Amino acid sequence: MPQDLPISKTAQAVQPFHVMKILGEAKALQAQGKDIIHLEIGEPDFASLNCVHEAVNQAMQAGLTHYTPTLGLAELRQKLSDFYQRFYQASVPPAEIMLTPGSSSGLQLLLTALLNPGDKVLLTDPSYPCNRQFVKLLHGQVVSVPVDASTTHQLTTDLLKTHWQTGIKLVMVASPANPTGSVIEQSELVKMAQFLSEQNAYLLVDEIYQGLVYDRPAESILANQNLGENVLVINSFSKFFGMTGWRLGWLVAPLHLMPVLDRLGQNLFLAAPTLAQYGALRVLEPDALALLEQRRQAFQIRRATLINAMHRAGWTINQPQGAFYIYWDVSNLTEDAEQLAMDILWNAGVAVTPGKDFGDYKAKQHLRLAYTTEPARLEEAVNRIVTYLSTR
Amino acid sequence: MPQDLPISKTAQAVQPFHVMKILGEAKALQAQGKDIIHLEIGEPDFASLNCVHEAVNQAMQAGLTHYTPTLGLAELRQKLSDFYQRFYQASVPPAEIMLTPGSSSGLQLLLTALLNPGDKVLLTDPSYPCNRQFVKLLHGQVVSVPVDASTTHQLTTDLLKTHWQTGIKLVMVASPANPTGSVIEQSELVKMAQFLSEQNAYLLVDEIYQGLVYDRPAESILANQNLGENVLVINSFSKFFGMTGWRLGWLVAPLHLMPVLDRLGQNLFLAAPTLAQYGALRVLEPDALALLEQRRQAFQIRRATLINAMHRAGWTINQPQGAFYIYWDVSNLTEDAEQLAMDILWNAGVAVTPGKDFGDYKAKQHLRLAYTTEPARLEEAVNRIVTYLSTR
Repeated sequence: MPQDLPISKTAQAVQPFHVMKILGEAKALQAQGKDIIHLEIGEPDFASLNCVHEAVNQAMQAGLTHYTPTLGLAELRQKLSDFYQRFYQASVPPAEIMLTPGSSSGLQLLLTALLNPGDKVLLTDPSYPCNRQFVKLLHGQVVSVPVDASTTHQLTTDLLKTHWQTGIKLVMVASPANPTGSVIEQSELVKMAQFLSEQNAYLLVDEIYQGLVYDRPAESILANQNLGENVLVINSFSKFFGMTGWRLGWLVAPLHLMPVLDRLGQNLFLAAPTLAQYGALRVLEPDALALLEQRRQAFQIRRATLINAMHRAGWTINQPQGAFYIYWDVSNLTEDAEQLAMDILWNAGVAVTPGKDFGDYKAKQHLRLAYTTEPARLEEAVNRIVTYLSTR
Repeated sequence: MPQDLPISKTAQAVQPFHVMKILGEAKALQAQGKDIIHLEIGEPDFASLNCVHEAVNQAMQAGLTHYTPTLGLAELRQKLSDFYQRFYQASVPPAEIMLTPGSSSGLQLLLTALLNPGDKVLLTDPSYPCNRQFVKLLHGQVVSVPVDASTTHQLTTDLLKTHWQTGIKLVMVASPANPTGSVIEQSELVKMAQFLSEQNAYLLVDEIYQGLVYDRPAESILANQNLGENVLVINSFSKFFGMTGWRLGWLVAPLHLMPVLDRLGQNLFLAAPTLAQYGALRVLEPDALALLEQRRQAFQIRRATLINAMHRAGWTINQPQGAFYIYWDVSNLTEDAEQLAMDILWNAGVAVTPGKDFGDYKAKQHLRLAYTTEPARLEEAVNRIVTYLSTR
């Protein structure tokens, strides 16, 4: 730092994604002409749908490029409400839905609305890394609950009660989850919500990977009857809907929070991107959803391909139920998964994400593999890793 | 609030935009069939350029809908660097430029990078309302410097020194400014930057309305030689470039801050919207800039039309040099500008923004008028207000 110019403690403490180091090395290797298979990227390889592009093109030609209301286009909030009713049998009034510039902004809005400095947020280790960072940026405290395969890496009501402490204002869960792809049963979610309601605390359910489940119907906590007013949901058009670069998500919150969220949104980002909202209107039409169902099936095939290849290699893998991740326990291969990730990249040309990005607990024993590429490449990735491991 | 569910103090304290009340009433009147002239909206009425739409359409067809790097597309950072060189004779390396999802996010990133709780930020009253809110959300303290027509509502080095106190980490100015349209001379900006460098504090210059000046060349603080490493700039594709709903801005910061900003951006928003970035690549081409120059001239004609009409009405108005606002001193008409705004809306069908949205100092004596509509409508707005005032 030149001179004595200020920098905040929170900013200094924010962790980078360790996968960025892998990604940087991977790009350097590619620049040298090496063929790298990318299993580190949490982004579908599919582009957004052509019908979305056509709808956006029409919106542009109609000059619909101005700001929308902070809560989002009224017709899109209505359409999401209809979508919940039709696909999840969930009654979610449009007035409780807010469009956000990516689900990151939804998360930030909700945490900003709820947390005073020193307030506690309970979440699992491992979990999506930014959750912890958002809490720290707001000067909140993270109560981290270590989870492992015995609970499919998910929080349970028992764990919640065991780790309960005063000062917890919010509990965050994700279903399907990143990095594990695991799903929480709705009955368990409802029990958690009820316990938290008694504690005057909120439950925030990350449903960003909603729709990407493979052996069961897609679900939403919002479909459950008799929930209290302490349930929050964030969601996204990035994953199932395949619109990553558009930066559009949404949140669902009880009516009493909406004026606060509206005011915070006015200040923090004004409104979500307009054309992304017109694209989202289109992607919720039946013909577009049918195309997305085909993509879901493609992910299912990829999952099977990767898991079968890993089983053939002799590795023990429990089949995750959703998202597009496998959280691979490599404890029989290494005591330092980050080093193994680097070795696999350099020697096998396969990029994966070290567990360290998702927490501390057993992080050195895990790698995350994303099946966001073609089946043939997934098989080749496993073959390359097998070959490397046999020679080291 | 149901039960005793938590809500944060900061969220409760966040002020709404008072103009939203005006806007709500205006829409209700329109729904009744009344003709409302909108001078309250800080958004150009022009849509984004057709050439932008064509470029975005091509990018969509090429499947370029995935995430970009957090700092933005490398070619756009280079193109902005070239733009600074060509139009402002400013040497700004691409490595010091970061694309952000709207300039709001740029502001948030910079404040988050710099401020610890309790740190002070000096800014003027009046000024853009969100600036104050961002400081409060980070638990910083606002040091508010009242400014009036005697300094064209701008901060000066003298005022800065007079109001200096320990604990100030950042000073925020805007040129051209919202709500006044006034410009700070570069010599004054450089003096402030030098004083702040001695104090180990940053100067953040909001250049969001850059390019929208009418009697002088557009300028950037970045064109000045021998600046220290304490100068920060935020900018936007919304105003001059006419891309409001696309939610794309950028920031310029010294190289030592970029890794911190990159990490914060990874967590807070991942990346700016991809297609907006492809649109921005196009809007920086010479033919697009020529069209934007025509729009600037249209704003100049509107400014003259509105000011001439106001002068004919017998009102004293100093001609602002930039943006598309007039900050109208109505102290000879009312002691309550917010009430006057409501009266004008109901009786004259003209929507304007009360000064209260921009601070406290002399706020009850001012209204902000935005000349974001056609000249004929601007003249009619003044005529309607004159008629109303003559009958009350």
